[in-house]
Amino acid sequence: MDSRPSVLLTDLYQLTMLQAYIEKGMEEPAVFEFFVRKLPAKRAFLMAAGLEQAMEYLESLRFTASDLEWLADSGRFSRAFVDYLERLRFTGDVHAMPEGTIFFPDEPIVRITAPLPQAQLVETRLMNLLHFQTLVASKAARSVLVASGKLLVDFGLRRAHGAEAGLLAARASYLAGFSGTATVEAGHFFGIPLYGTMAHSFVQAHTDEMEAFEHFAHAQPAHLVLLIDTYDTEAAAGKVVALAPRLKQEGINVKGVRLDSGDLAEHATKVRRILNDGGLADVQIVASGNLDEYALQALIASNAPIDSFAVGTAMTTSADAPYLDCAYKLQEYAGRPCRKRSEGKATWPGRKQVYRHYGADNRIAKDIVTLADDPQEGEALVQPAMRGGQRLAPPSPLSELRERAATELARLPEHLRRLQDSPPVPVQISQSLLNLAKSVDECARGVKRG
Amino acid sequence: MDSRPSVLLTDLYQLTMLQAYIEKGMEEPAVFEFFVRKLPAKRAFLMAAGLEQAMEYLESLRFTASDLEWLADSGRFSRAFVDYLERLRFTGDVHAMPEGTIFFPDEPIVRITAPLPQAQLVETRLMNLLHFQTLVASKAARSVLVASGKLLVDFGLRRAHGAEAGLLAARASYLAGFSGTATVEAGHFFGIPLYGTMAHSFVQAHTDEMEAFEHFAHAQPAHLVLLIDTYDTEAAAGKVVALAPRLKQEGINVKGVRLDSGDLAEHATKVRRILNDGGLADVQIVASGNLDEYALQALIASNAPIDSFAVGTAMTTSADAPYLDCAYKLQEYAGRPCRKRSEGKATWPGRKQVYRHYGADNRIAKDIVTLADDPQEGEALVQPAMRGGQRLAPPSPLSELRERAATELARLPEHLRRLQDSPPVPVQISQSLLNLAKSVDECARGVKRG
Repeated sequence: MDSRPSVLLTDLYQLTMLQAYIEKGMEEPAVFEFFVRKLPAKRAFLMAAGLEQAMEYLESLRFTASDLEWLADSGRFSRAFVDYLERLRFTGDVHAMPEGTIFFPDEPIVRITAPLPQAQLVETRLMNLLHFQTLVASKAARSVLVASGKLLVDFGLRRAHGAEAGLLAARASYLAGFSGTATVEAGHFFGIPLYGTMAHSFVQAHTDEMEAFEHFAHAQPAHLVLLIDTYDTEAAAGKVVALAPRLKQEGINVKGVRLDSGDLAEHATKVRRILNDGGLADVQIVASGNLDEYALQALIASNAPIDSFAVGTAMTTSADAPYLDCAYKLQEYAGRPCRKRSEGKATWPGRKQVYRHYGADNRIAKDIVTLADDPQEGEALVQPAMRGGQRLAPPSPLSELRERAATELARLPEHLRRLQDSPPVPVQISQSLLNLAKSVDECARGVKRG
Repeated sequence: MDSRPSVLLTDLYQLTMLQAYIEKGMEEPAVFEFFVRKLPAKRAFLMAAGLEQAMEYLESLRFTASDLEWLADSGRFSRAFVDYLERLRFTGDVHAMPEGTIFFPDEPIVRITAPLPQAQLVETRLMNLLHFQTLVASKAARSVLVASGKLLVDFGLRRAHGAEAGLLAARASYLAGFSGTATVEAGHFFGIPLYGTMAHSFVQAHTDEMEAFEHFAHAQPAHLVLLIDTYDTEAAAGKVVALAPRLKQEGINVKGVRLDSGDLAEHATKVRRILNDGGLADVQIVASGNLDEYALQALIASNAPIDSFAVGTAMTTSADAPYLDCAYKLQEYAGRPCRKRSEGKATWPGRKQVYRHYGADNRIAKDIVTLADDPQEGEALVQPAMRGGQRLAPPSPLSELRERAATELARLPEHLRRLQDSPPVPVQISQSLLNLAKSVDECARGVKRG
């Protein structure tokens, strides 16, 4: 995306609440934290993603003249408030887990500390950005775990939920360990490696499949992957064997063939044999079509001779869990810890830190969630990222974040790697946090006032 | 969105196939159709949406100087091809079902007729736009069917999959019959009515809930909806009763209260009694929190005194069916009908039309899918929308599309209105289409060449 959505991409109540805050002079520091309440079914962990886009949003936050005019004309807002919005910039602090970090429920992955109106206003878009990339990275990481050693490529743009979803899903899946994407703009904008083959329509537009292969070979001599399931997969594999020597004379090597339908394991086995018998043992087999981590696991368990998987819709939409039960909650205002107690939605008050403990095998053993001013043993996961509206470091290259994600996945213990399980979450709430929660409750009940 | 995504928001293979088409002079007219292969579970119909954004995309399709430079530098494309892209515009025809039309599997909702490279290139983004809005409109229509007479509002932006998803979900749900959205940019850009209340954080930022209500009332005197579940729902309802007379003296009317947690039916009943006993019978009750059409149906069946529902994540992500099994397939090239025969993915060849038949009750009885040149009785659903790259009519106001959607929903027979059923699809394939499919198969098998 070479252009940012309008700052009006927010909920109406953010603006109406802001007007009330401004009118009452409620501009003391507020602390909000973004976290996930609970894991989707059959999920054992999540992977943080989207911080970079969240920080870009905060840095560039401003109302344009046309936004302000529209707001003024809407009749909902005072002139004084519209003037305030004209001057509004994000001047707060951000603490966050770096992208690629494995995390669990009740752990803050982003903390915003800023004057209340700023910290409130940014809620909707911050959630929109952090939720989606975390959702996709967490889903993609599961394919990465089961398909180690195979090449994984994102093919999801066409059924992603709009333009930004397609682009950010390419980023989040690459971060989680995919090798690349078919989405050209993701190559252009993020520098993610691009992969592509050919479509059935290309074969169909020719009267002859062999002629289609030959045409495509001449147009894509350096990256030649032929789609062979349009009519009869094995017959088409035979055509590739017949064609390859002719292409070789012209200096063109067939790099791979793609299977997109039917029983992929069975076709891959037959096609592998046809290719090998035809002297094409180095031609790779790419599989696609309704793949997800479960399908990958089954194909790999069956020893199907597939070298590369294109994963699309199921990953881009996180189809088995298309949203996370996440929240961005006020934890402290003007130095006073807050806690929402709505039924089934109570949250832990105060500004928090997460300390990670590793076992002797260097795998994640447990996390302790505690107050930020209650230091503990372990690795502190929530780190300063922005102070006074300014980043503390330049954006990390995507390659670095990807390495971090790989390191994190390597540290997952066996019981957190299984696709079908919902193991207990390895998170412990500290005594200081339990005490604070109790005292905030008593305060709100009127037992005492803090 | 005040700015369009780059034309590079496409799959790499579109560009590589294009280069091959151009090199071989394959620029004859091609016909592609967008359709859904089968319905998600527990769905009885779909609602077409997204045509307006698809047409805007086609009208504005062009490569910028920076796109072209990047493509040239990528090393994948010839100079001649990049020059071709510089001149490329969409000059084709569009036939489509108007937005808001009810449709079923195997029925084309959009047909593109254009020189092959153009019709191919637009595949990814057309699908991305048509799929998502159709997905959301189809989901939102189910809430509209079960909650007739209630006000429905989209609250889904925060967990929508990115910016465009949030904005287009507001549009698609409004088209399907929602009354409005909380997404400010959807009001700004599409003119959709805006609704909003207040957040728990607003209450928490005050040391006293009553004070929070009073502050908010003064900042939003004309649209006052108070959120009452932050601590104790019924106690907060009592505070509203105590506050309302004081506000009334200042000319401020409490318009509604919002419930967001717990047993919504039980709270609504208690709160309704408290409000009525306090002389606030005209204060409406708004419910939110993990709502979808099933929850709405249960709440309405229980006679819960709820006036308005805010539906968020489940609708915006179409959570029970986050994607459609849709396709954009080549049906004809250079006058020759095409058919993909990949296992489990065979499609009907040729350019098609859908004729709808109504029963004596004016409800949908059946559809006949046939060839465009095989006129039948019934209402022809696929209509010309663009010719030679030019729209045949200015964009329809959203209000008109919304009326069409309402008319369509009113024409659904009882058995297609139920949430839990998967009734047989009322679609009949014509004899002429069956004959063509058979002859295309025989042709591809080599029995004869067409």
